[in-house]
Amino acid sequence: MKTIDLNCDMGESYGIWRLGRDAEIMPFVSSINIACGFHAGDPSVIRRTIESAIEHKVAIGAHPSFPDLQGFGRREMNLCENEIFDIVLYQISAVKGICEALDTKLHHVKPHGALYNQATKSSPIAKAIAKAVFSLDKNLILYGLSGSFLIDEAARMGLKTASEVFADRSYEADGNLTDRRKSNAVINSGGKAVEQTLQMVLDQSVQTITGETICIKADTICIHGDGANARAFAKTINQALKERNISIKSI
Amino acid sequence: MKTIDLNCDMGESYGIWRLGRDAEIMPFVSSINIACGFHAGDPSVIRRTIESAIEHKVAIGAHPSFPDLQGFGRREMNLCENEIFDIVLYQISAVKGICEALDTKLHHVKPHGALYNQATKSSPIAKAIAKAVFSLDKNLILYGLSGSFLIDEAARMGLKTASEVFADRSYEADGNLTDRRKSNAVINSGGKAVEQTLQMVLDQSVQTITGETICIKADTICIHGDGANARAFAKTINQALKERNISIKSI
Amino acid sequence: MKTIDLNCDMGESYGIWRLGRDAEIMPFVSSINIACGFHAGDPSVIRRTIESAIEHKVAIGAHPSFPDLQGFGRREMNLCENEIFDIVLYQISAVKGICEALDTKLHHVKPHGALYNQATKSSPIAKAIAKAVFSLDKNLILYGLSGSFLIDEAARMGLKTASEVFADRSYEADGNLTDRRKSNAVINSGGKAVEQTLQMVLDQSVQTITGETICIKADTICIHGDGANARAFAKTINQALKERNISIKSI
Amino acid sequence: MKTIDLNCDMGESYGIWRLGRDAEIMPFVSSINIACGFHAGDPSVIRRTIESAIEHKVAIGAHPSFPDLQGFGRREMNLCENEIFDIVLYQISAVKGICEALDTKLHHVKPHGALYNQATKSSPIAKAIAKAVFSLDKNLILYGLSGSFLIDEAARMGLKTASEVFADRSYEADGNLTDRRKSNAVINSGGKAVEQTLQMVLDQSVQTITGETICIKADTICIHGDGANARAFAKTINQALKERNISIKSI
Repeated sequence: MKTIDLNCDMGESYGIWRLGRDAEIMPFVSSINIACGFHAGDPSVIRRTIESAIEHKVAIGAHPSFPDLQGFGRREMNLCENEIFDIVLYQISAVKGICEALDTKLHHVKPHGALYNQATKSSPIAKAIAKAVFSLDKNLILYGLSGSFLIDEAARMGLKTASEVFADRSYEADGNLTDRRKSNAVINSGGKAVEQTLQMVLDQSVQTITGETICIKADTICIHGDGANARAFAKTINQALKERNISIKSI
Repeated sequence: MKTIDLNCDMGESYGIWRLGRDAEIMPFVSSINIACGFHAGDPSVIRRTIESAIEHKVAIGAHPSFPDLQGFGRREMNLCENEIFDIVLYQISAVKGICEALDTKLHHVKPHGALYNQATKSSPIAKAIAKAVFSLDKNLILYGLSGSFLIDEAARMGLKTASEVFADRSYEADGNLTDRRKSNAVINSGGKAVEQTLQMVLDQSVQTITGETICIKADTICIHGDGANARAFAKTINQALKERNISIKSI
Repeated sequence: MKTIDLNCDMGESYGIWRLGRDAEIMPFVSSINIACGFHAGDPSVIRRTIESAIEHKVAIGAHPSFPDLQGFGRREMNLCENEIFDIVLYQISAVKGICEALDTKLHHVKPHGALYNQATKSSPIAKAIAKAVFSLDKNLILYGLSGSFLIDEAARMGLKTASEVFADRSYEADGNLTDRRKSNAVINSGGKAVEQTLQMVLDQSVQTITGETICIKADTICIHGDGANARAFAKTINQALKERNISIKSI
Repeated sequence: MKTIDLNCDMGESYGIWRLGRDAEIMPFVSSINIACGFHAGDPSVIRRTIESAIEHKVAIGAHPSFPDLQGFGRREMNLCENEIFDIVLYQISAVKGICEALDTKLHHVKPHGALYNQATKSSPIAKAIAKAVFSLDKNLILYGLSGSFLIDEAARMGLKTASEVFADRSYEADGNLTDRRKSNAVINSGGKAVEQTLQMVLDQSVQTITGETICIKADTICIHGDGANARAFAKTINQALKERNISIKSI
């Protein structure tokens, strides 16, 4: 029986501000990525999100970012490799410790936003992140874009990896996600997103915006936790997979 | 042979800004308390400070604070107990993880500034801190003001404690430190500070500003790492202790 | 014809996070208080809120706070008077400049959260705030709790003041707001809130939780912009006042 | 008689941390650029720096930056033009207001660090900055690298500009500063720096690292306020200019 991981970014509230429908989505995913306080999340939000993850028995990941609360970690920043190593290590250490205090374990790491994107295309940045994860705990799984430098560098270092694909984002011929500024970057139709997801999971391939079918490695599928239809979409993907006898499980 | 711990706050630089003469003081102390990023310190400063501590073979502590970079954690803040538990757990987890990534261990926790002072006098705050430390690692030692609620609550919870005394601060009749706003709060004479230190270590007593001699428990002596004479003072205290055959060792 | 000011805190979003139903409430109030970036608000949120205020022709105030984004400025902090002068001056200057860049004027200042509360009871803090406002622009109106030290000190300095009362908060016998931790602090019934508001505006008196009727000066009424019923409540108060021929106008 | 402006970045302390030898340099320059709180400076530091500038009768500028305290505003960030407009307007408004509260005037604006560099090469970023300055006060002078897009866009908008040259930085053939990562980027010899400065001021030309002499517009010379020799260097430049009968005056 085939299995796949469904992951979602969570714990993105901050102080008085709420973001994401964590409690609604939690039942439909097998792993979550928790903001570590640099782009979202604060110590109380992190602790409560871990408590909720324990209850729902989903695998817990740290979701480190550039230090940019106002920009939600989505603005490119030019940090040197040492700085990236240090900020990633700090953030994942914080979440790992809170996990252990609550008698659970940190399972994986997935970089956030602009850091994720830079790690996709830059080998030195990918290496700095992988080194931070490896130095903290060799058993942590590193999530990265399927086919990215991040997956390459993590594997080279001896880390277990999870190649990530996106249910509702379109792909370019070279395997990259279509730039968000293009109109066809996001797949708005639930039906099409399900179709793409099933193809990626069952055939390990995806149809690009230019019409070709390219190979893709799909270990984990990212779904989004915000937006009015987040819960419905999570449920739809979850059910479509189960109907094909694909088991939804963390790695 | 009698032993005592000499501790000093370190890693209080931030970004481009330098504070403290860490490298100069390190040879004379047996344990250090590293700022965790909330009142001082950033991920790179923390990592470098731990590397230096490993080199000098001093015991490493986390030095958590209220989130107040501009006020250096010295301004009282009114957080509820849950918030204090969460910010302490987050900070000490971050430093613990970085220690482990560098193949060393976190040894103790000492709250900083206003948080330290509030934990001295408030049982609920003391409890929230002790609970955070205990939940992360039962083997961590909690440093607190000798005779304070923090020591009481930590002990009650089953944590090992270190009763802290100050080499260069004067004491009131009730065992509290003289308020910093009073002119006689700080002992400026090196000779007097040495004298007070020796009395505290050898007799477990101290002479108060009102002339009485009161009992005091001295497991660890705090010395300050900033100021032009910090190194000279650290060296003087260190040598005075050794001359009395008191071994300087972490707990 | 009697007139009264209706004010509401606005611009409390931050980065990606949204808070408050500013656009929905704007039509029913005559003045707004804009978060300045220390407890909420960022440069873009401030600019957009001012643009919206211009459109709705409401008077614009700055809403300075302690520097505590995570705590939304609601946690007491112990700053010295110079520090309070400096943070208030910085924040109101920022908002004043953005107003002028958009060809409008800053009309008033109202401290936020814990700073507001401390200025109510502490004469030195009240003075530091009033001095900051006065030094920037003598024509700014300072909003403060009716009967508070803040109103006293502002008046003494020669500033115009606006004594603020609350539509949906109950009062104690001494004229203070009932502590939020007490169950009867907030008036949940719309009808009762309207009744209290009308009494305060028409009779300049209020009935306390202990049953007495006490005098109160009401220049401006604060209503809240968050919560599911915020718009309905704003509308109800607005209409109830107009039905009594009370004109809603900024000072 | 020829005149030239000598400018220096100041007010770069933050909270407990000190940076720069402001008081030592102040007597030798005619204008200063004050950090606005985003890369350095806090409300108290800004106020004290303005007070000192008033005493020394130097022209006061605002020195806005990307929001990156830990990176001192030196790390490139990818903000959209609206965001840049908003953060610049916020920062210069804050400093302008504090100037006015202290009965002085804001004289100019000079972007800091990575924002300065990006404005040199990017026309849209230059435009966003110039627009923010223009919208706040048409009489403010915008300082930018000689020959940069920032100068172009500011002039096009109708702002007065000051073309900045550097006493101790070497130039490439295209008029750009040599990249700091190259070994010959900084001119360490005081004599050579003086020589370059005099050539720039008197001949409006500079010799590049590749040996050519190129034209350069020099309205203001930047000198650095940190480093052990900052005061001596400032004094040397100041005297060398005066000996050639060049008057040191703000624009």
